[in-house]
Parts: sequence; C-alpha cells; structure tokens
Amino acid sequence: MKVLIAGIDGYLGWPLAQYLAARGHEVAGLDAFLRREWVEEVGGISAIPIHDMKERLAAFHSRYGYTPVFRQGNLLDYEFVLQFFEDFRPDAVVHLGEMPSAAYSMIDPAHTTFTQHNNVIGNLNVLWAMKEACADAHLVKLGTMGEYGTPNVDIPEGFFEVEYRGRKDTLPFPRQPGSFYHLSKVHDSHNTMFACKIWGLRSTDIMQGVVFGTQVEDDPRLSTRLDFDQCFGTAINRFCCQAIISHPLTLYGEGQQKRGFLPLRDSMQCLALAVENPPQPGEYQVFNQFDECYSIEELALLVQQAGYECGLSVEIQQYDNPRQEAAVHYYNPDRVRLVELGYKPADDAAGEIKRMLAELEPHRERILAKADMLVPDIRWDGTRRRSRIVDSAQLR
Amino acid sequence: MKVLIAGIDGYLGWPLAQYLAARGHEVAGLDAFLRREWVEEVGGISAIPIHDMKERLAAFHSRYGYTPVFRQGNLLDYEFVLQFFEDFRPDAVVHLGEMPSAAYSMIDPAHTTFTQHNNVIGNLNVLWAMKEACADAHLVKLGTMGEYGTPNVDIPEGFFEVEYRGRKDTLPFPRQPGSFYHLSKVHDSHNTMFACKIWGLRSTDIMQGVVFGTQVEDDPRLSTRLDFDQCFGTAINRFCCQAIISHPLTLYGEGQQKRGFLPLRDSMQCLALAVENPPQPGEYQVFNQFDECYSIEELALLVQQAGYECGLSVEIQQYDNPRQEAAVHYYNPDRVRLVELGYKPADDAAGEIKRMLAELEPHRERILAKADMLVPDIRWDGTRRRSRIVDSAQLR
Repeated sequence: MKVLIAGIDGYLGWPLAQYLAARGHEVAGLDAFLRREWVEEVGGISAIPIHDMKERLAAFHSRYGYTPVFRQGNLLDYEFVLQFFEDFRPDAVVHLGEMPSAAYSMIDPAHTTFTQHNNVIGNLNVLWAMKEACADAHLVKLGTMGEYGTPNVDIPEGFFEVEYRGRKDTLPFPRQPGSFYHLSKVHDSHNTMFACKIWGLRSTDIMQGVVFGTQVEDDPRLSTRLDFDQCFGTAINRFCCQAIISHPLTLYGEGQQKRGFLPLRDSMQCLALAVENPPQPGEYQVFNQFDECYSIEELALLVQQAGYECGLSVEIQQYDNPRQEAAVHYYNPDRVRLVELGYKPADDAAGEIKRMLAELEPHRERILAKADMLVPDIRWDGTRRRSRIVDSAQLR
Repeated sequence: MKVLIAGIDGYLGWPLAQYLAARGHEVAGLDAFLRREWVEEVGGISAIPIHDMKERLAAFHSRYGYTPVFRQGNLLDYEFVLQFFEDFRPDAVVHLGEMPSAAYSMIDPAHTTFTQHNNVIGNLNVLWAMKEACADAHLVKLGTMGEYGTPNVDIPEGFFEVEYRGRKDTLPFPRQPGSFYHLSKVHDSHNTMFACKIWGLRSTDIMQGVVFGTQVEDDPRLSTRLDFDQCFGTAINRFCCQAIISHPLTLYGEGQQKRGFLPLRDSMQCLALAVENPPQPGEYQVFNQFDECYSIEELALLVQQAGYECGLSVEIQQYDNPRQEAAVHYYNPDRVRLVELGYKPADDAAGEIKRMLAELEPHRERILAKADMLVPDIRWDGTRRRSRIVDSAQLR
C-alpha cells in the first residue's frame, strides 16, 4: 500500500515509516520539524541522539532499498497538503502531525491557542484534502486514551449503546479530557467522525495509551528520539531517564492515577494493523490502543525494580501534582478490536523497561546535562512553580 | 450588574444590550463588526435597515440614559480582550461573538477553518482572560441545540445519568452536530467545561434553539438586523421574507426535520435569566433554550397561515436538501431549567410570525432586490449548486 505519514520526523512517525517499509509498503511523509523546535523551546533534548532528515532518508534507502518521498511543510498550509495528496495518491494517510503535549498546552494563553489551532486546523485540512484528492483512502488518525478522561464506568471503544428513559441508541462515548491538548484531540475526533458521515471518508481513530520505549538501531541515523522533559517526555520515559542518573522518580501526587500504556514497538504493530485493515467508506471506527493499565506508582516500581537489576540505585519521591486530575478513580477501558485483528504484545512492560535502560545507559551524560529540568513547573492553574517533594499526609 | 457583551452589534447582542439596560444592568460591549462583513460576502442584506455603532450608541443613550462602554476589537486578540476585562471588571460576560452559520462553515476549506479558528480560539481567549482578570465573573456562553444532533433518545440539559455494564455515572450528553459550525460550538462547550473544572470559573452554557423574529423600535437606530440569506437567515426568518415577496417557501427536502425554536424576545428573556442566576464557582451548567419543537414543514404552514391572514399569497415548495441531515427522526429535548427560573414565553409562534410579517412589510423592496439568493446553493458535499424543486417521490 501507499502510505503517507504526516509527522514522519517524530517519535512515532520515524519508526513507523521503517516498520511499514519492512512490511513492504511504499511510504511517503511530510513534516515541518516543529517537534524539534518545541522540545528546544522547553529546554529539552532527545536522550537518544537523532539525525536530520537528509541523513535519515539516506539511511532509510540503505536499509529498505528506496527513498521515501518526503516534503517539508505544515498541515496548516492547505494547498501544500492538497498538492501532496494529489501527487502521491495514498491508500492510507497516517496522521501523527500534531502537538502532543498536555503540559505545553497549559503554559499560557498563547500555548493553549497555538495547540488547538495547530491540531484542529491541521486535521481539518487533512480531512478536506482527502475529500478532494483521495476520498477513498483510509485516514488512520492518532487520538489519545486521554480523550475519555476517567469516568466511573467502563470505557468502550468510541461508542456505547445506552438505554435512556426507555429508549435505546448507540452514541459516541462522552469525552472528559484533562488538558487543552487532550481537548484538541477530542475536537479532532468530532470533526473526523462528521467528515466520514457527510463525505463518505473512512477513518480509524486510534485512542492510544501512553507510549514508552526507545528504538535504537545499528545505524544510529535510523534511531528515533526519546524525550524526557516535562512536556514531551511521557511518564515511563521520564522515569527511565531519571533512573539512569539516579534522580528520584518524580511521582505526581501519590501516583494512584491509572492509565493505559504500551511500548513503542507495540504501537508500531498496532498502527500497521490499523493501516492494513481499513473500514468501509463512510465508516468511522475507534480502536483503544494500549497493552496494560497501570497506576503511575506501579510504573515507578517497575522502573525501580528494573533499575536494581541493572545496578542502578533508584529512589521514588512524591511531588505535589502540577496537574489537576482525579487522585483516585475507577479505570477499566476496553481493548478488543486490535486483539481481534491479531495484535500480540511483543513483551511485558518490565522487559521493555530493562531494554530501555540498557539503550539509554550510553547517553547518561546527555541526560545529566538536563538534570535541572526533571521536576515539573508547568501548573494547570496557569502559574509556573517547581513541584516540591511532599508526603502522603500532605496530599490528603 | 456589570455585563459585558461580546458581539454587541449582532442580531442577539444589540437587543440584549437594551433588554439588560431596561432591567437596570450596566452594559458594555465589544464587536469587530464581522457579521456585517460576512453577510455582505454571501450577498445578503439585513431586511430591516440597521445603523452604525455610533448612531446606535447615541440612540441607546437617549433611551436608557447612559452610553455603554464600547470597544471595537476582535476576540482573537487576547491582549485586547484581557485589557477590556481588566478595565470594565464585569460581573457577567455574555459571549455572543462567534460566526453563527452552518452553511457558511461548509463552503470550502477556507470557510471551515476560518469558522473553527474564529470561534474556538476566540472562546479560549475569553476563558483565559476571565481567569486572569475576573475569575469570579459568570460566563454566559451561547451554544446551540444543534450540538446534540438528533439522537434516538431524549436530550437532557447537558448531562445525563447512565448505567453502563452495572456501574453508574453522570456524563456529558454525547454531541453529534451537523456542520463544521455546530462542531465549533461543541468544541467550545468542551473547552468551557474544562476551564470551569480546573480554574473554578462559573459558566452557563446555553444550548439555544433556532431564534426567529424582528425587533423593530420606534427609534430605528435601536432596531436589530434581520437576515434572510441561506447562511445567516434562520428558517422562519427566511420563510417570512419569502412570504413578503410571494416567493415559494423553500422547504429543505420534505421538511420533517424537527428543531427547537424561540422568538427573539424570548431569547432576550432567557439570556437575562441566565445572567441573573449565576452558578457556583467551578460550576458549569447547561440550559436548553427554546419554546417549542416544530418540523420545518409545520413552520412553513404557520408562515403560510399567517401570510393568508395578512393578505399574502404563500406557496410552499420542496427543494432538494443541500444539507446532510436525518430526513425523519426522533426529537424530544428537555426544557426545564429556564422554566424553573421563571421563563414564560411571551407569545406563541403564530403570533410572533404575524408581528414579524407586519414589521417586514415596509421593507418589501429591500427583500425583492435580493430575491435571486432565496434558493440555497451551498451544499454539504463541498460543491455549489442551486437546489431544485422536487416532489416527495423524488425525495424517497
């Protein structure tokens, strides 16, 4: 299949290009390299060194025998998007080209509005351009499990049948996200569902859990990035980088918040399954994409244990939570549809974390140089203040 | 109370300023005069002549004894919004400053993205500026009944209790809107609910039905606009203008689509009730705001009947529907909370329509001059083609 990846330079986009190429697909991609700018803006750095697109493409050619068509450009530029879709005529578009950080979206009005503008308008341009240029192609769009929030009932995959006052209907499951970034994803979901309905587009909307893990290749030009700052580093990735330099793992609050997680390599498997199993024209389907649910404390304990086994001394500390989120809550999301398509996790979280620590070890100095940014200071109330170490009594 | 109206120059904003002043409130307002530009862009004109803001404010002063603080500016300009909120320190902000047309939002990619950008970012700026400048003020935000779409169950006011797989929760009622404009309102609702939750803002979110009716004053500078083009003219307003010039009433399809409606004067009563009954800090409440539900055909018959009584010969014709919407559907929305606060409709729809025809009659020539734009051509599939007269057999 011809697969166009929006955001091919990113944490997921670059390994996905390789994963799809290894499965025989013809990959093309676009990127505006904004992720690199955002990480720099917040003072971060990829723990794994990454290379520029020219080198990446050369290495891709050496490994997979062809150079993906790549165009530098922004999804906010409709004419650019339309022209690329018309020229490449993809069978599938994988849309990973959004600003992915909750904390970044909460910094101030400018970052909130940037986030929603960038994500919502970019996605609208993708929808319109698909309608105009490749209406039969399949849009695999990345959403997040965070769209659902933490309701007190099970979380289905996108839709649920309800009985209300004696009548029944199948309705979109209500969304209660926890940041302006997560809200942008909710907006995308609504816009995409509507575009499928009125234009007959087909889309698989991926409610993805928190992805963690490195992908380091023999040819370092093929490796993907690994961020560990408060904005672009997801929980396990941050914990692992902290463990490497013996910084206390920074639990937000007591760490009883539960979320769904999956390793990067499993995310690749799931996205490929989605690409290869398009829904019918006009159909909008939702996959919940994660391996296992953990509390943040359980994750910290996994990292601590894996650290011990690697000879690292790892402490866990509770910090006052810079976010506003339920401290204790019910959490039971479905995860059925990808399993039906054949999804099998490659390893458990513990195994993945050990591999990750080994791959991060050579980059200890890079992480150490950024040790001052390991404690978060972007707060959900719009202020900046570094979280302090607290004990459970203070949190209650 | 000190009430700041965003969109004070609009169809609702201008009469609301007067209604609130008559009830003793101190009104201020902002507007960028975009509604005037949009109507001109689509070839429309207000059937009722309107005056510029300078004249409007002078007339307001004569009638109510003071001149509202008015600033020309755009909600997309955060510094402008923040400064105005800081200077005026409102007790309530009524947010009517959005692009309100479904058809306009469906024209092409540029109009879709303009609509969502204008509405979503403007509302985000209002939320942030309230948090920073007047966090205790009450945001009365205009949404639309169209956010809900037409589910096969009753429509509650914003939230519903559901039992799902043996567990219960109170959840936001799922939204299934029918245009990119309506989607922008859904996005606003989600953003506003979140801002109340994390910042302790208080908001009443009005899911308003389709408003119709004129408000013509002795001093014509106090009259509000009345649009009848396919974008900015709501169904009854269009029908009444068509009746005035004996153009067939343009039913979209068989006209069995049901919606909630209310006259302009009742909308003023409801909005004032909302302003005067703020929720608690951190509370986000939803009011469904309409008088009665009608099918579009029933409305056309009401206009036809009222026309006969005014000596007008009124024909009704079915046109192929330029929109995509359910032709026949269940529709039973709640309307309880405003009634509990004392809302009493001033008149029934038939009485309101007769008053409207009388007020439009002197402006027959203005409407006649725009007779060529009475049949819609903006289609939900992104094309432009004038709807044709069809019979029921063709519609099935």
